[in-house]
Amino acid sequence: MPPSPRAHAAPWQRAVYSVIFESDTPAGRAFDIGLLVAIVLSVLAVMLESVRGIALRYGSFLHAVEWVFTVLFIGEYLLRLAVVRRPLTYALSPLGIIDFLAIVPTLAALVLAGSRYLLVIRTLRLLRVFRIFKLGRFVGESNFIVNALKASRFKILVFLAAVLTLVIVVGTLMYVVEGGQHGFTSIPKCIYWAIVTVTTVGYGDISPVSVLGQTLASLLMIMGYAIIAVPTGIVSAQMAGGGAAPVLPPAYKQVVCHVCQAPDHRPDAEFCWRCGEKL
Amino acid sequence: MPPSPRAHAAPWQRAVYSVIFESDTPAGRAFDIGLLVAIVLSVLAVMLESVRGIALRYGSFLHAVEWVFTVLFIGEYLLRLAVVRRPLTYALSPLGIIDFLAIVPTLAALVLAGSRYLLVIRTLRLLRVFRIFKLGRFVGESNFIVNALKASRFKILVFLAAVLTLVIVVGTLMYVVEGGQHGFTSIPKCIYWAIVTVTTVGYGDISPVSVLGQTLASLLMIMGYAIIAVPTGIVSAQMAGGGAAPVLPPAYKQVVCHVCQAPDHRPDAEFCWRCGEKL
Amino acid sequence: MPPSPRAHAAPWQRAVYSVIFESDTPAGRAFDIGLLVAIVLSVLAVMLESVRGIALRYGSFLHAVEWVFTVLFIGEYLLRLAVVRRPLTYALSPLGIIDFLAIVPTLAALVLAGSRYLLVIRTLRLLRVFRIFKLGRFVGESNFIVNALKASRFKILVFLAAVLTLVIVVGTLMYVVEGGQHGFTSIPKCIYWAIVTVTTVGYGDISPVSVLGQTLASLLMIMGYAIIAVPTGIVSAQMAGGGAAPVLPPAYKQVVCHVCQAPDHRPDAEFCWRCGEKL
Amino acid sequence: MPPSPRAHAAPWQRAVYSVIFESDTPAGRAFDIGLLVAIVLSVLAVMLESVRGIALRYGSFLHAVEWVFTVLFIGEYLLRLAVVRRPLTYALSPLGIIDFLAIVPTLAALVLAGSRYLLVIRTLRLLRVFRIFKLGRFVGESNFIVNALKASRFKILVFLAAVLTLVIVVGTLMYVVEGGQHGFTSIPKCIYWAIVTVTTVGYGDISPVSVLGQTLASLLMIMGYAIIAVPTGIVSAQMAGGGAAPVLPPAYKQVVCHVCQAPDHRPDAEFCWRCGEKL
Repeated sequence: MPPSPRAHAAPWQRAVYSVIFESDTPAGRAFDIGLLVAIVLSVLAVMLESVRGIALRYGSFLHAVEWVFTVLFIGEYLLRLAVVRRPLTYALSPLGIIDFLAIVPTLAALVLAGSRYLLVIRTLRLLRVFRIFKLGRFVGESNFIVNALKASRFKILVFLAAVLTLVIVVGTLMYVVEGGQHGFTSIPKCIYWAIVTVTTVGYGDISPVSVLGQTLASLLMIMGYAIIAVPTGIVSAQMAGGGAAPVLPPAYKQVVCHVCQAPDHRPDAEFCWRCGEKL
Repeated sequence: MPPSPRAHAAPWQRAVYSVIFESDTPAGRAFDIGLLVAIVLSVLAVMLESVRGIALRYGSFLHAVEWVFTVLFIGEYLLRLAVVRRPLTYALSPLGIIDFLAIVPTLAALVLAGSRYLLVIRTLRLLRVFRIFKLGRFVGESNFIVNALKASRFKILVFLAAVLTLVIVVGTLMYVVEGGQHGFTSIPKCIYWAIVTVTTVGYGDISPVSVLGQTLASLLMIMGYAIIAVPTGIVSAQMAGGGAAPVLPPAYKQVVCHVCQAPDHRPDAEFCWRCGEKL
Repeated sequence: MPPSPRAHAAPWQRAVYSVIFESDTPAGRAFDIGLLVAIVLSVLAVMLESVRGIALRYGSFLHAVEWVFTVLFIGEYLLRLAVVRRPLTYALSPLGIIDFLAIVPTLAALVLAGSRYLLVIRTLRLLRVFRIFKLGRFVGESNFIVNALKASRFKILVFLAAVLTLVIVVGTLMYVVEGGQHGFTSIPKCIYWAIVTVTTVGYGDISPVSVLGQTLASLLMIMGYAIIAVPTGIVSAQMAGGGAAPVLPPAYKQVVCHVCQAPDHRPDAEFCWRCGEKL
Repeated sequence: MPPSPRAHAAPWQRAVYSVIFESDTPAGRAFDIGLLVAIVLSVLAVMLESVRGIALRYGSFLHAVEWVFTVLFIGEYLLRLAVVRRPLTYALSPLGIIDFLAIVPTLAALVLAGSRYLLVIRTLRLLRVFRIFKLGRFVGESNFIVNALKASRFKILVFLAAVLTLVIVVGTLMYVVEGGQHGFTSIPKCIYWAIVTVTTVGYGDISPVSVLGQTLASLLMIMGYAIIAVPTGIVSAQMAGGGAAPVLPPAYKQVVCHVCQAPDHRPDAEFCWRCGEKL
């Protein structure tokens, strides 16, 4: 639900509000789609600018594009502040913060070169896409996923703590075993290696050479292979609805009370649970 | 179900139809198996031709083989068009399009060298194998898988969108952190790296060198390790049939009827289901 | 269940049978444990012999060990044939074939050097370990796993066929895209690369360099990441018992009491649970 | 539950006990938090000392830090022994052993350099964190995970045995196929490679070069891809509650017929289902 409009709004504020915050009117819809295109284009411009060959040829053009979009987004942000009922609440809401962060990097780049690339945070603005296409379905599905993750967050934290402990202990053992050679030059680096291994990513930038090291690595890999089953099992069980409510009573009788129309009686019920009438 | 035969078909058309489109008669069955063998052989010929050592020795032979099969497949395609009731409908059906695509690359290679390799698309013609062996069982099983994926397509899309956003943001951070060095030479390349990492593929062609970069990579790996649980959980829950119907009725009320001692009343029951007494 | 003993066995045959095939008597148990140790030692000897440093020093000793064990295993094999009721049936049973294969490589190595290493097939003889320790529990568990895999074998085959088609098509595309360079030197090699990628192994011995190639690889990785959910979902659903029978277990008898109409009797009930009448 | 205090404790022993072993009083809580901080700092000190650049500059300082913490932990350990009811029982309990191991490495390092790094075992002391914040919730969740793993331990052992056999056989085949070249220099090393491959880690430090080797590797990868479904399926099914107890929906009444001893009556049964007797 979009934030409410300003209480005693001038007519222009009402008009702007309905264009910017709502998407029921043709103007509002057109604005939303235009915004969507602008976001994608501006993110693409930032990405392309980081490619050396493109930057050499089209650098100044892409730079100009970036400034144009930034000015547009600043204008949009100020308009949103101007027409919303509680500007501060909007500014501190997740979407408001993202809108703000989408502007900052260009300005910050005047001071600190390199911060410009953080403009890709504009990608997060695409979350608005959900609203534009009224993709309630997607919102529902993402709620489903988020809820399943939220319900299993303690289990996942415990699992991560166990993995972290495993990784610290094995990483240190590896430092001792490989004697600080073959890339295992410090405990933090060994822990990095252990994470690369236990998650089955396996870059191979660091890999054990000694027999003992390869044996230890083999054990870690097999453990990583086995324990990946744990988060998967947690989320599967949660999503299947089996984790939360393990007991499922028998399906109800398909009969409706002829007096009060109450449904869902026990399969062996003889009297209505709501009015006490003989079924 | 194969497409229907031409309405007022000449006898030769009927005969050809039953051989090509049906597999009940010995002739139809022999044709289907011959077609199967031809597909496999022609795909193998294309593959082998791409191996330099083999191409030097047997190149012209393999080239001849390819043309023979292509001419055969063209003939077969024309025959199919000739005997089917609605040629256009067949030509635009999935199998018809695959049959057409299986011919084009050889001809296109006359104009554009290299396009010949697209002949491997003939592999898709093997889908006909299902029909030949009447592998209804396989069709049923693949429907089961396809349906489970279709039912969870919105969840999977949401998941992919989240992964994409994560990968873009982390990739860009990595570009800033590693300072465009050690292979992290542009944002698109960093995003490629992030995908390689989060999917736990981990080629190692690009891998972080700085301490901050390795820390960020570790976080990404652990996230990738944890979130692989999400698509798995979605599909598991869907296949187990738990996703569709999120949980049967509410647990019973922990009250016993004071008259007949009947247990297990609905949580909102006001009358006993067995004796009809007020609870 | 071990094979039956010879029908009209001489006393020594009975005695040998009970030692070799049974593990109830102290002698039989001692034999089984000795066999277990012999298998492990002989496999270890073969492994160590392949390590150059060890082979140089202890080569002739390990060679002798290997021959001693082979002679022992030949003797054991002949004894088994001598005392069992149907020697041919035993020789062709899975365990009999493994017993035979455990002998062959040493002899074959006289003709063809290198075949000796196939002695590690003796590892499979460790399957006997299940019997020795009467690990019925393990047998039950492995049956559980095998049955779940067997029940989902058609789904897994369909899945593997889909992965194979994907891998062939993407591999060939990659051959065209990377232009036969950067290790993508032939279609079979590109298919090997595609398998390395889609299974998230990711050696990195071959990895894409061109922008188009990296884009294609990214798509393949994300697909591999998503479709790993399919076999997992299949097996999970099968093991949870949710896929096959969505209805909970002790399904009630589909009979209604002819006196009081009470439904939902135990499948083996003979009297009504409500009124006590004969069903 | 913490171990009981000494029976006839002096007042100082009671006071120390309540501070060290309990966390209800402000003093006890402050002690626990201080201990927590000390553990983290001492582990960090060990890790940083292994980084060459840091060790050169701050080595002696970090060394001092380590000794200070070790002395503190020795003092704490002796105090625990002094005030607990059964010192030996405490010393041999898991937490007691961890407390002891957290001290040893510093002392051992006087004799054997390098053993100091084993100090990271102090990480395990963080398990106390659960008690400090009374994180009963976390304890419950980790019990849930541990129980699910414990219940499926036989299945997981069978699975690991199968993977181990697969890895030994394929590793040896690979040794024969690649002819001891390209890094496949001995059977143990080939088994290491097979583990790296089947777990989808894929360092790429050793990778097949011959056509036959790549084919064999492809098969192993696809098997690894498929069989990862097995442990996941096991744990998922276990957690969903489907694996262990195939679920008895309307839990039967815990009553046995006094005539025929028949068990498992409906919760609302009034007559025995086997003999029709009044329950």
